[in-house]
Amino acid sequence: MESTINSNMAQVRKIKIGIVGGTGYTGVELLRLLAIHPNAELTAITSRGEAGMQVADMFPNLRGYIDLPFVDPAAADLGQCDVVFFATPNGIAMQQTRALLVKGVRVIDLAADFRIKDVATWEKWYGMTHACPELIAEAVYGLPEVNRAQIRGAQLIANPGCYPTAVQLGFMPLLKAGVVDAYHLIADAKSGVSGAGRKAEVHSLFAEAGDNFKAYGVAGHRHLPEISQGLGMMSDQQIGLTFVPHLTPLIRGIHATLYARLTASCDLQQLFETTYENERFVDVLPTGSHPETRSVRASNQCRIAVHQPQGGDTVVVLSVIDNLVKGAAGQAVQNMNIIFDLPEHTGLEVVPLLP
Amino acid sequence: MESTINSNMAQVRKIKIGIVGGTGYTGVELLRLLAIHPNAELTAITSRGEAGMQVADMFPNLRGYIDLPFVDPAAADLGQCDVVFFATPNGIAMQQTRALLVKGVRVIDLAADFRIKDVATWEKWYGMTHACPELIAEAVYGLPEVNRAQIRGAQLIANPGCYPTAVQLGFMPLLKAGVVDAYHLIADAKSGVSGAGRKAEVHSLFAEAGDNFKAYGVAGHRHLPEISQGLGMMSDQQIGLTFVPHLTPLIRGIHATLYARLTASCDLQQLFETTYENERFVDVLPTGSHPETRSVRASNQCRIAVHQPQGGDTVVVLSVIDNLVKGAAGQAVQNMNIIFDLPEHTGLEVVPLLP
Amino acid sequence: MESTINSNMAQVRKIKIGIVGGTGYTGVELLRLLAIHPNAELTAITSRGEAGMQVADMFPNLRGYIDLPFVDPAAADLGQCDVVFFATPNGIAMQQTRALLVKGVRVIDLAADFRIKDVATWEKWYGMTHACPELIAEAVYGLPEVNRAQIRGAQLIANPGCYPTAVQLGFMPLLKAGVVDAYHLIADAKSGVSGAGRKAEVHSLFAEAGDNFKAYGVAGHRHLPEISQGLGMMSDQQIGLTFVPHLTPLIRGIHATLYARLTASCDLQQLFETTYENERFVDVLPTGSHPETRSVRASNQCRIAVHQPQGGDTVVVLSVIDNLVKGAAGQAVQNMNIIFDLPEHTGLEVVPLLP
Amino acid sequence: MESTINSNMAQVRKIKIGIVGGTGYTGVELLRLLAIHPNAELTAITSRGEAGMQVADMFPNLRGYIDLPFVDPAAADLGQCDVVFFATPNGIAMQQTRALLVKGVRVIDLAADFRIKDVATWEKWYGMTHACPELIAEAVYGLPEVNRAQIRGAQLIANPGCYPTAVQLGFMPLLKAGVVDAYHLIADAKSGVSGAGRKAEVHSLFAEAGDNFKAYGVAGHRHLPEISQGLGMMSDQQIGLTFVPHLTPLIRGIHATLYARLTASCDLQQLFETTYENERFVDVLPTGSHPETRSVRASNQCRIAVHQPQGGDTVVVLSVIDNLVKGAAGQAVQNMNIIFDLPEHTGLEVVPLLP
Repeated sequence: MESTINSNMAQVRKIKIGIVGGTGYTGVELLRLLAIHPNAELTAITSRGEAGMQVADMFPNLRGYIDLPFVDPAAADLGQCDVVFFATPNGIAMQQTRALLVKGVRVIDLAADFRIKDVATWEKWYGMTHACPELIAEAVYGLPEVNRAQIRGAQLIANPGCYPTAVQLGFMPLLKAGVVDAYHLIADAKSGVSGAGRKAEVHSLFAEAGDNFKAYGVAGHRHLPEISQGLGMMSDQQIGLTFVPHLTPLIRGIHATLYARLTASCDLQQLFETTYENERFVDVLPTGSHPETRSVRASNQCRIAVHQPQGGDTVVVLSVIDNLVKGAAGQAVQNMNIIFDLPEHTGLEVVPLLP
Repeated sequence: MESTINSNMAQVRKIKIGIVGGTGYTGVELLRLLAIHPNAELTAITSRGEAGMQVADMFPNLRGYIDLPFVDPAAADLGQCDVVFFATPNGIAMQQTRALLVKGVRVIDLAADFRIKDVATWEKWYGMTHACPELIAEAVYGLPEVNRAQIRGAQLIANPGCYPTAVQLGFMPLLKAGVVDAYHLIADAKSGVSGAGRKAEVHSLFAEAGDNFKAYGVAGHRHLPEISQGLGMMSDQQIGLTFVPHLTPLIRGIHATLYARLTASCDLQQLFETTYENERFVDVLPTGSHPETRSVRASNQCRIAVHQPQGGDTVVVLSVIDNLVKGAAGQAVQNMNIIFDLPEHTGLEVVPLLP
Repeated sequence: MESTINSNMAQVRKIKIGIVGGTGYTGVELLRLLAIHPNAELTAITSRGEAGMQVADMFPNLRGYIDLPFVDPAAADLGQCDVVFFATPNGIAMQQTRALLVKGVRVIDLAADFRIKDVATWEKWYGMTHACPELIAEAVYGLPEVNRAQIRGAQLIANPGCYPTAVQLGFMPLLKAGVVDAYHLIADAKSGVSGAGRKAEVHSLFAEAGDNFKAYGVAGHRHLPEISQGLGMMSDQQIGLTFVPHLTPLIRGIHATLYARLTASCDLQQLFETTYENERFVDVLPTGSHPETRSVRASNQCRIAVHQPQGGDTVVVLSVIDNLVKGAAGQAVQNMNIIFDLPEHTGLEVVPLLP
Repeated sequence: MESTINSNMAQVRKIKIGIVGGTGYTGVELLRLLAIHPNAELTAITSRGEAGMQVADMFPNLRGYIDLPFVDPAAADLGQCDVVFFATPNGIAMQQTRALLVKGVRVIDLAADFRIKDVATWEKWYGMTHACPELIAEAVYGLPEVNRAQIRGAQLIANPGCYPTAVQLGFMPLLKAGVVDAYHLIADAKSGVSGAGRKAEVHSLFAEAGDNFKAYGVAGHRHLPEISQGLGMMSDQQIGLTFVPHLTPLIRGIHATLYARLTASCDLQQLFETTYENERFVDVLPTGSHPETRSVRASNQCRIAVHQPQGGDTVVVLSVIDNLVKGAAGQAVQNMNIIFDLPEHTGLEVVPLLP
C-alpha cells in the first residue's frame, strides 16, 4: 500500500497539535478527523501505557494516515504545540493545563475538568479535589452555537459532554424564547455504548450491552449539573431538569427526547429554524420529522425536530448527534477552527455514513 | 434426532387449540410456548399463503416439537377447538369471531380488533370499518393484573398491545392511588424491531434498523388510544398522555420510561410493591434499580422500578417486558390459563435468557 | 411478585448440586437450566469475589428462581454434594477435584483442565503446570455422542469446549466412515462474543466487537489440540487440521463450516442421518439446508447440514450450536443426567428462541 | 443549517455524472462519495418510483450535500453526461448501455450485466436472456489491481461484485506465483447484511438477520462463476473453487477467509507485500495480523493478512473490504478516476470509521 501521509499539504498554514491520551475513543476520533484536516500538523500523541507503539498498530483504520508512535507524556515537548487536546479521563487535564497556558499553548479539554463553574459542585459530582480552581473561571464552555464569540479568543476550552450537547441544543430555542415551564424540563436521553469509552468494564461488553436496553443513573448522572448550568444560562427562569440516560445497543449516537410544558403559544417550527438558520452544524428538519442517529453518524451534525403532539401543551424535541463527533472530537475540532480563525467546517466535511 | 413430540403427555386435561395466522412473530412465539405447555393440544395452525408447508420447515427452532403443517383457513375445522388464537394482522379476527363464539369456542385476539371500546375511535385509528361492533362490548381486555375476574368468564379476549402492557402496568399504581397529575403523563417508550412484525418492510431491515435509533409516530400512534382508555379506567381524573415510541436495535424488548408530576406525598416503593405483591408476572425491583430488557427476555415477566430523582416532584417509572411474550403471546397464554382455570403460570415457567 | 422457588418439587429424586464459580456466563447458564430441572437441588454457588451477594442481584433474570447467595469457596461444604460443576477459569478445577472425588462427589469441569490426555501438550497450550496429572487418565471427555457409555460410570467429566463440540460432531460421520482425507481437514468456525466469557476485556466491548468481524488465533488456538485429539480417536488415519476461529457480532452461537476432501464415494446425507438417528440433541437437516445459529439459541441442540457443492470432491459440513448450552452448560447438564441415570433430556426441553 | 452544496468548487475540471437507480445502497453510497469528490458534478439521479422526491428526503445523511430530486429515467438527459453509473438491479444496464455508448458516454455498471464473458454462463446464473451480448467482449472488468491499463481506455466498465473483489485480491498473489493447488481453492466468505441491498425481504429483517449467523447458497451462488473467471485469468492451472458465503450481523463489511494447499515453498509475506507495494487501496498487514472489517469501514481499502498455520501446507489468507465501498461504489469511483486520468484516490480519502 502506498502511504498517503503528508501528501498535498504544502503551503497551507499549519497548526501544531498535541494530543494527550490518544488511546481512547475520543482520541482515535480526533485522529480520524485531524488526519485529513488540511491545517493540522500532528506533533505528539501521548500515552503512558503504550509509549513506543505505533498509533496505527493500535488503530489499524489509521494505517496510511498516521505515522507516529505514542510517546510518553514525560518525553513529549507539548510546550511547542499551538494547541493541545486532552482526550484523557477526568482529572488529568487540570494537572497539566497551567504549564501549557503559560507557554502560550491553547488547551482544549475533552473531559469534564473545566465544564462546571461552581467548584464545589464539580468536586461533589467528580469525587476529587480540583487541582486548579482558579482556571475554571477563564475556561470557555465550548458550545459554539452558544459561545462562539468567547471561544474565538479563548486560551482554554472546556469541550462539552455528549449528552449536554444534544440536550442543550434541543432546549435552547425554547428557553431563549421563554415559552416553556423551565422548572419541569425532562430529558430522556439514549446513548450508544462508545459513550462509556474504551475501558474494559463488564457492563460495556458486547454480551452485556448487546440486544439489551436499560436506563442508568436515574438518581443522578454527572452530566446533570453540566446541562443544568447550561440551560440556566439560556433562561431567565429557575431551571429544573429530570435527566434519564439510557444505554442502547448502538456503537455511536445519542438521541435526546426532550419534553417541556408550553406556557405561551408559539410557532415552534419557525422558532427552531430561525434560531439555527446560520449554524452549519445544526440542522432543523421539516415539520413532522423524526431524526435518526445514523443520519449524523461519523459527522459533526446535530439534527433536530420539534413536535407538539395532538396540539396539546407538551412540546417534544428530538435531537440527535454522533456522541464521538459533535459530542466530543468533532466539536473539539470545531472549537480549534474557531480559535485559529479557520472556516468552522474545515476538516469536518464528512458525509454521514448511511447505512 | 429423536423427536420429543407428544412425550409424557398422558392423563392430563388437554385444551384443543387452533391458531389462525401462524407465520408471524406472535404466531411462532405462541408455538414456542404451547409446544411445552402440558395442557395444550395443538389442533390446527392456519396460513393462507403457506398451507401444506410443515410449520417446522419455516421455523426450524420448532423441529422436534411441532409436527403439523400449516392448513388453509378454509380447510381448518376451528369450530372443534376449545380456544382459537388470532395471530393475524388487524381486521381479520373481527370477521371470524362471531362464527366461532356461536360454536362455543373461546377466542383470544392478539391483534387490535377488540381492544378499543369506542367504535368510532377504533375506526379512525385503524382506518377500516369494524365488522362486528356489537361484539366489542363483550370482549374483555386481557390484562390480567387489571381484569382477572372478567377474564375468567370471558368468551372473547382482546389481548393487549405490547406498548400498552408495559405502560399501563407502570402507571397503574400511581393512577389508582391518585398521587399524580393524570392529565400530563409522559410515556417515552422504546421497542425492539420484532414489534414491527415479520413483514418485509424497508424500515425494519437489518441495515436500516441496526446501529440506529429513532423516534416514530410522535404525531400519533395506534397504541395511544388503547393506552389512554386503559389509564382512564384506572383514574378518576381526566387523562392526558404524551406517548413517544422509539425504534431501538434490539430484537425483543420494550422499555417504557414513564414520567408524571406528583400531586401528593407517597412512599412510592411501598405503593408499587403492595400493588403487585400477589402478581406472579410483575416484579417490582428494589429501590434504585434499573431493569434491563434482557432480564425478561423470552419470559412473561414485567419488571418495574420507581424513582424520584433528586427528591423532586417528578416520578420516573421504568417498566420492561419482552414484547413478544408479556406483550403478546405469553400474555395470551396467561389469559388462556385463567379462562381454563389452570395455574396462571402453566407453561410460562421460562427463565429469562441472559446473556 | 410471587416466588416460584421450590414449587411442585416434592417426591422426586433430588441431586445435590454445587457450582464453583457462578459469576461467569457458563455459571449463570447452568443456573438458568438447573433452576427448572426437576431433579436439581442447588446447594451452594461459590464466588470468591461476590460472597454474600444474592445470586439474583447479579443476574436479575434469576429473580424468583434462585434464592441463594454466593458463598465463599472456603465456607462451602461441597463435600456433601452429589455433583460439583466447575464453571471457573482454567486451572481451578484441577486444584480441588481430588478432594471432592475422595468424598465420592462427581465432578464436571466446564473448563479445560481435564480435556487433553497428553499432559505436556496441555501444559504447553495452557501455560501452567498441571496440578493433578494422575487424574487426567480417569477423566472422561464428556461428549455424549462419542462417549456415552464411559460417561455413565464416570467420577470426573471433562466437559468439551464450545468449538470442539461443534467441530467434532460435524466431522464425526466422515471420519468414522473413513471417506475423507483426514490429514487436510479445515474448520472455519465463527463464535458469538459470549464465548470469550464475562471478563472485562477491551476486545470484547460492544463498541469493539459490534458491527465488526475478524479472525483470531490463526497461528494457534487452545481448542486446536482438543479438537485434534478428538478427531484422532474417530479415525484410523493421521489427522491434520487447519482451525480458524472468528469473532462475530452475535451474543450466542457457534457456526462451524467444515471442509474435507472426499476419498471415497458415499451417500453423505444418509451417512449423517444414520449416524445421529438415535441422538436427541443432534439434528441432521434435510438435503440443501443451511442451519442458522438462532435455530438452536438457548437450547442444547446441535443442527447439522452436509453439502457437496457442484458435485465436486469437497464436502462441506455446516454445524451450529449455542456455545453456552451444547457448547458448555447444557452439555454439562446432559452429562449429569447420564451419570445419574435420568432421561438425557431432563431439564433440557427448552424450545430455541426465534426470533 | 447553512448548506455546503457547491462550495469551493470553482476552477476544477468537472465530470458530468448521471446515476441510474439512486435509491439502493450502492446508489446512496455513490452519492456519499461523489458529494465531496472535487471533480464530480452530479447532473441527474434517476428513480422510476421516487421521481420528484428530493434525494436528501430519502437519505437525510445527504442533507446539505445533495440538492437534487430523483428524476424519471425517461426525463433524464443522460446523453449529456460524461459518465453514467448504473446502481440498478441486474438486467437494467444491459438495456440502456448501447444508447449511451453511442453518444460517447462512459458507462460503469455496478450490477452484474457485463461481468461474465461467457454469455451462456451469465444467462444460466442470472436467469434471463442477455440484451446486448455483443457488448460483453468490450466491457472491461473493473478491478484496478488486475486491469488498470484496460480500464484507462474503457468505454464500459463491469464493476466487480463484493465477494469477488475480496476473494480475487486475496488469492491473486498465490495464483500469479503458481505456488498453490489451484484446483482445490476454498473461499469461506462472510458478508454484512447491506450486501443484500435495500430490498424489503424477510430474511434481511433486523429480527431475522440480527443475532444470527448462517451460510447460504452453498449449492451455488452467482458470484461463483465471476470469481472463477477472475481466478482463471490469474493462473495457468485449471481452477476449482468451493465458495461458501455466510450472512453475518454486520451492516457493512466482507471478510473472506481463503484456503489453499501450497505446492511450492515460498516467502508468503514477501510475496504479498511485493504484489501490492504500489497499490493505494490494498494494504498487506504485518505477519501474524488479523484484519478486522471495521478497519476498512466506510473506506475503499482492502486489508489482507497471510498465514501458514503450524508451518503446514495449508495457506490461509484473510481479506477484508467494505462491501459498499471497495466492493461497490468506491471501486466504481476508483474506476472513474482512472478513466478520467485523475489521481486514483481522488474523493476516496475517507479514513475508516473505528469504532
